[in-house]
Amino acid sequence: MEKLGKQTVKFNNPVTILQTASIVGPKEADGPLAQYFDNCLEDEFWGEKTWEKAESKIIKETVNSVIAKSNLSNSDFDYCFAGDLLNQCISSSFGLRELNIPFLGIFGACSTFVEAMCLASVFLEGGAGNNAICAASSHFCSAEKQFRFPLELGNQRPQSAQWTVTGSGAAILSKNGSGPFITNATFGKIVDMGIKDSNNMGAAMAPAALDTLLTHFKDTGRNPSYYDAIITGDLGHVGKEILIELAQTKGYNIKSNYNDCGVLIFNQATQDTHSGGSGCGCCASVFSGYLYKMLQEKKYKKILLMATGALTNATSAQQGESIPGIAHAVSIEI
Amino acid sequence: MEKLGKQTVKFNNPVTILQTASIVGPKEADGPLAQYFDNCLEDEFWGEKTWEKAESKIIKETVNSVIAKSNLSNSDFDYCFAGDLLNQCISSSFGLRELNIPFLGIFGACSTFVEAMCLASVFLEGGAGNNAICAASSHFCSAEKQFRFPLELGNQRPQSAQWTVTGSGAAILSKNGSGPFITNATFGKIVDMGIKDSNNMGAAMAPAALDTLLTHFKDTGRNPSYYDAIITGDLGHVGKEILIELAQTKGYNIKSNYNDCGVLIFNQATQDTHSGGSGCGCCASVFSGYLYKMLQEKKYKKILLMATGALTNATSAQQGESIPGIAHAVSIEI
Repeated sequence: MEKLGKQTVKFNNPVTILQTASIVGPKEADGPLAQYFDNCLEDEFWGEKTWEKAESKIIKETVNSVIAKSNLSNSDFDYCFAGDLLNQCISSSFGLRELNIPFLGIFGACSTFVEAMCLASVFLEGGAGNNAICAASSHFCSAEKQFRFPLELGNQRPQSAQWTVTGSGAAILSKNGSGPFITNATFGKIVDMGIKDSNNMGAAMAPAALDTLLTHFKDTGRNPSYYDAIITGDLGHVGKEILIELAQTKGYNIKSNYNDCGVLIFNQATQDTHSGGSGCGCCASVFSGYLYKMLQEKKYKKILLMATGALTNATSAQQGESIPGIAHAVSIEI
Repeated sequence: MEKLGKQTVKFNNPVTILQTASIVGPKEADGPLAQYFDNCLEDEFWGEKTWEKAESKIIKETVNSVIAKSNLSNSDFDYCFAGDLLNQCISSSFGLRELNIPFLGIFGACSTFVEAMCLASVFLEGGAGNNAICAASSHFCSAEKQFRFPLELGNQRPQSAQWTVTGSGAAILSKNGSGPFITNATFGKIVDMGIKDSNNMGAAMAPAALDTLLTHFKDTGRNPSYYDAIITGDLGHVGKEILIELAQTKGYNIKSNYNDCGVLIFNQATQDTHSGGSGCGCCASVFSGYLYKMLQEKKYKKILLMATGALTNATSAQQGESIPGIAHAVSIEI
């Protein structure tokens, strides 16, 4: 590998995304991408007694599924990079405690899935192993309970609010394979423009997405038209429009080939999801379910996948803090 | 680098730990290691209005301090790997949001500092950059509030309970330097032996420490006497004794050269800290303050630093879950 510019690593022997798996909840199963997910649950509990246990089961079964689909066994994996939105990332640590694979917990809020891909790519090309699992999850009910209000309160949400995806995505990265390849990783900085409205995460994260996007173009010498699709993780409808405008002011027109996983996963007109999907599971499930198949079918040959995270919690909001954002990006090419 | 056995990476061009810095709170300043820390605070607030903001300030100033001591500038750093115990790791993301360095948030509970060292070592030797910052923090008051009881309640703690360290440690890892070197990293698996008592974290984490310790010896072909010191992160007095016993049953006698950061940082007889220190800041500050100086003064030439984490939260405890543990280890040699 080699460093391009300040924040990008170019992989000369890029890893293959060998396999993916995805499981989503009932709301996502009613959305436009339902056919692409491996498993659509009928309810938010999946037989568990709590939402947190259900989320753990979702990431557990998603990872078990991707391993099964790959025909590898657990002992073939050198690392599992995983994280989620629950306090102290308990969804992934409880869900994956029986994996028996070296575990590296990460926290990048909703940027977690791409952060995992960035880390695993460096590890494998660097020579630290052959196969790694990247996984992330979120759950609408556990997230609402933890970050906002009890669901039982039935409170109204502003139109800028996003709907946390119930779901998980997992990808196997391998030194051996014929693509799709992760060819570049651009590592993001924390960007905080002072947005304090936790019902407008898209606006809070868009400046970080812009920063990583511009850095990626500068570091690689590419421009938006290089990619068949530029896909952010969960800026939602509001954040997507902001990013398009901000990029335009910097001289980049991304309007024609840019979309967002949070926009793609729900039908805004019929599903009452306001600004769209969010959560670690949004980018993870949309990539693992939908985008990976588009790459396999060569409908996309080059995509830039950039997941954004809002690095906030309930206490910091109560203490009047703003919402720092971050975005990490990977180029995926066949 | 090359893989040794199943879980260890051996670095052939190992990175140097170029510089460290540490800041601790008033309780730690009354302990036996006070003279080794860069800055001992007089109170838990450090001029801030909340404990969370104080913890953010502590990690921020620790990282600023290690950069200043290194004579490098922020633009010389390719990555910052950091994490903490607060929900959604807000101590590190708020404390380090102005760094302007690519940021990779990690969560390994109290194993975070060594997890950061493991990741940074692979990144730098792999060719992804030249310099990285590893940092972690914890705060007694914010941790008690979040994980256990309001401090105002003044409740009694059992003798097996540990005292979360108020403090932070930061280390600069660099491709250029003359040591101390990180020569091996052993990546741990999640181990859950069913312990449910959140006032006995040492017992919950000791099996994970044993697993990583045995794996390290097996992978490297080393035995305990190879090291001048084997140091765990925060097993405390209870967990330390358990690890010694468990290792003995597996044929390894570590009694003579093994100690624990949580045991070292407080005086059990006079400070009412029961089983000893804990928290991400425990291993981070004891390594950055005390152990790094022992290496520089050649009092230790070879140490195995193994940080342990309890992957639990308040909700999982209320839902009757056990406490999964994890441990990551690095060999540090001059």
